Amino acid sequence: MTTMLEVTDVTAATCCAPLVREPLSAAEAEDLASVMKALADPARLRLLSIVAASENAEACVCDLIEPVGLSQPTVSHHLKVLTNAGFLSRSKRGTWAYYALVPGALDRISQVLVTS
Amino acid sequence: MTTMLEVTDVTAATCCAPLVREPLSAAEAEDLASVMKALADPARLRLLSIVAASENAEACVCDLIEPVGLSQPTVSHHLKVLTNAGFLSRSKRGTWAYYALVPGALDRISQVLVTS
Repeated sequence: MTTMLEVTDVTAATCCAPLVREPLSAAEAEDLASVMKALADPARLRLLSIVAASENAEACVCDLIEPVGLSQPTVSHHLKVLTNAGFLSRSKRGTWAYYALVPGALDRISQVLVTS
Repeated sequence: MTTMLEVTDVTAATCCAPLVREPLSAAEAEDLASVMKALADPARLRLLSIVAASENAEACVCDLIEPVGLSQPTVSHHLKVLTNAGFLSRSKRGTWAYYALVPGALDRISQVLVTS
């Protein structure tokens, strides 16, 4: 139990260190790859950029369907993947769901990739 | 023809603009997603970080197999994906292939993700 807590602490502490600084552990690589997978899709990247470029970095799902040219269920699926990965937060107001960029989430990945 | 050239120019010019600044075009999102896919794998992230953390950011394939605990063909496949995506360069010296981090390649992706 103590060992597990220690491992968790180390992972959390080194989550944002640039990957060029020292070799990633297997656990760190698994975590980072799962987050990268959420970004490794053209529709999700477009949805993320549309939300991010919207006023207050928030958009109604009703305004996200037409720009990407996909069905509502498909758009909702992609938004769920981005939400589960921690890049978007979801709130429901009236009939529609609204998605907002989670502050710092993209920057965290940006910091991991920087080399200089 | 003129229009196609213009589109190509715009894509090249905006390749590194943060994705939060304005919505990505379909072509930009396809390009970025294909590069992200190369990073969205734990073994490839570990290989990249081991190469990057090595002296002169270069490593012999013979020194990459044991740390990741995979077979040589599997490691070679992952290194090829990273090379094709532009993150690593390959040179052969004697019996072994050496892989080096391509300067600026990771930073380019880091810049696309930054929000501030």
